[in-house]
Amino acid sequence: MNDGLRVVLVAPRNPLNIGAAARAMSNFGFASLRLVNPYKVAYLEARSAVGAGPVLEACREYASTAEAIQDCALVVGTTSVGHRELQHTLRRLEYGARLIRGQLSSGNVALLFGTEKFGLSNEDLSHCHWLLRIPARAEHGSMNLGQAVAVCLYELVRSAGKATPATSTRKPASAADLERFTDLLLEVLEKCGYVHERVSVSTKLKVRRMIRRLNLPAHDAEIWLGIMRQILWKLDGTS
Amino acid sequence: MNDGLRVVLVAPRNPLNIGAAARAMSNFGFASLRLVNPYKVAYLEARSAVGAGPVLEACREYASTAEAIQDCALVVGTTSVGHRELQHTLRRLEYGARLIRGQLSSGNVALLFGTEKFGLSNEDLSHCHWLLRIPARAEHGSMNLGQAVAVCLYELVRSAGKATPATSTRKPASAADLERFTDLLLEVLEKCGYVHERVSVSTKLKVRRMIRRLNLPAHDAEIWLGIMRQILWKLDGTS
Repeated sequence: MNDGLRVVLVAPRNPLNIGAAARAMSNFGFASLRLVNPYKVAYLEARSAVGAGPVLEACREYASTAEAIQDCALVVGTTSVGHRELQHTLRRLEYGARLIRGQLSSGNVALLFGTEKFGLSNEDLSHCHWLLRIPARAEHGSMNLGQAVAVCLYELVRSAGKATPATSTRKPASAADLERFTDLLLEVLEKCGYVHERVSVSTKLKVRRMIRRLNLPAHDAEIWLGIMRQILWKLDGTS
Repeated sequence: MNDGLRVVLVAPRNPLNIGAAARAMSNFGFASLRLVNPYKVAYLEARSAVGAGPVLEACREYASTAEAIQDCALVVGTTSVGHRELQHTLRRLEYGARLIRGQLSSGNVALLFGTEKFGLSNEDLSHCHWLLRIPARAEHGSMNLGQAVAVCLYELVRSAGKATPATSTRKPASAADLERFTDLLLEVLEKCGYVHERVSVSTKLKVRRMIRRLNLPAHDAEIWLGIMRQILWKLDGTS
């Protein structure tokens, strides 16, 4: 069983979908299921899904997407697109799965699925490095949650072994470091007057996305954190 | 919508599974659903599946597998194997799907799925030219019916082998912009005391490489330049 891929269901409502996701994970050999703010009843009822027992028992709950992905070096969101303007690189499942497999050899990966009705929120999406699209019809792109999970995991095990190694062999920065970088940069932007005193939510999301697009290796993230701290120290000392 | 592939569910019991199969068919562009001896209630209740309306309306019922596959030139059964001795050629989904695609250009193909509990009967199997296996774990090979349909249909529409590059390719930043970014960052680093007054050549090279590793799109490079200028302006004004 693979333990490095975290299948993250954000605010799932339907117990059958949680159970179906867990069953597909067991079918294809993935052990780590994470739920963000599941509807309580859904979570309890899911425990009856056929053959999904061990996955559901090991399942963990989180209060926010940020916490659920904290130990992941790559965060990938799933989307049926169409309904909003995307600010992310969008990859077809075939190709994206190869990148994920490559990444899994060096670190954890989070694969995010949104709520049944609305998918991932802009807040959730801002944590993602890029987005994955299952090649469904444009006229009916919205898939059932359990089926979407099954198809993604199938593609991940499909002719496994032929993993495309990650483009850079460097260890990528953790989500926690990227979030620290985001916070520090926001503080710098405030202090030097680039943004108004009260940073708006949309600015925060913009900055978070921009930082994720950098695809920082862990080593570089450390350097950038040091730079941000030094700038802050100087701005504080002279204001 | 493809009309040559007949998705045949033999004696399905659970209305949710019929609905899920129809929804996956709609997602991946397959129009022809056939039910053999469905449990009556199941069939009626299925009609509520999200977005599956047209597929369910066109759905046809048959009293036997033989009748349901009558107009097909190739009949393929699906199986999780393991529980019985197989008398058929067994093909992994990746490879089998290619053969089905090839066949669809010249004639109809039936893809058979058995009942939720027991799969296809020996009678059903006897109609099959060969069998298809989804590469699930040996320890838990039995998939949910709706998920199995989704995975098979996905493989049928999947662009065989060809890695599709990212759909959105952003215009990358120019070398000139990257060099401006490098210069501005070096100035910031000097002014806030991160590096000593006289920046050494090796530091400059390090920073230049680090900036290149960001692989900035042109639009992001502009934002970063603006941020650097603002930080410098603040540092200058307060020193």
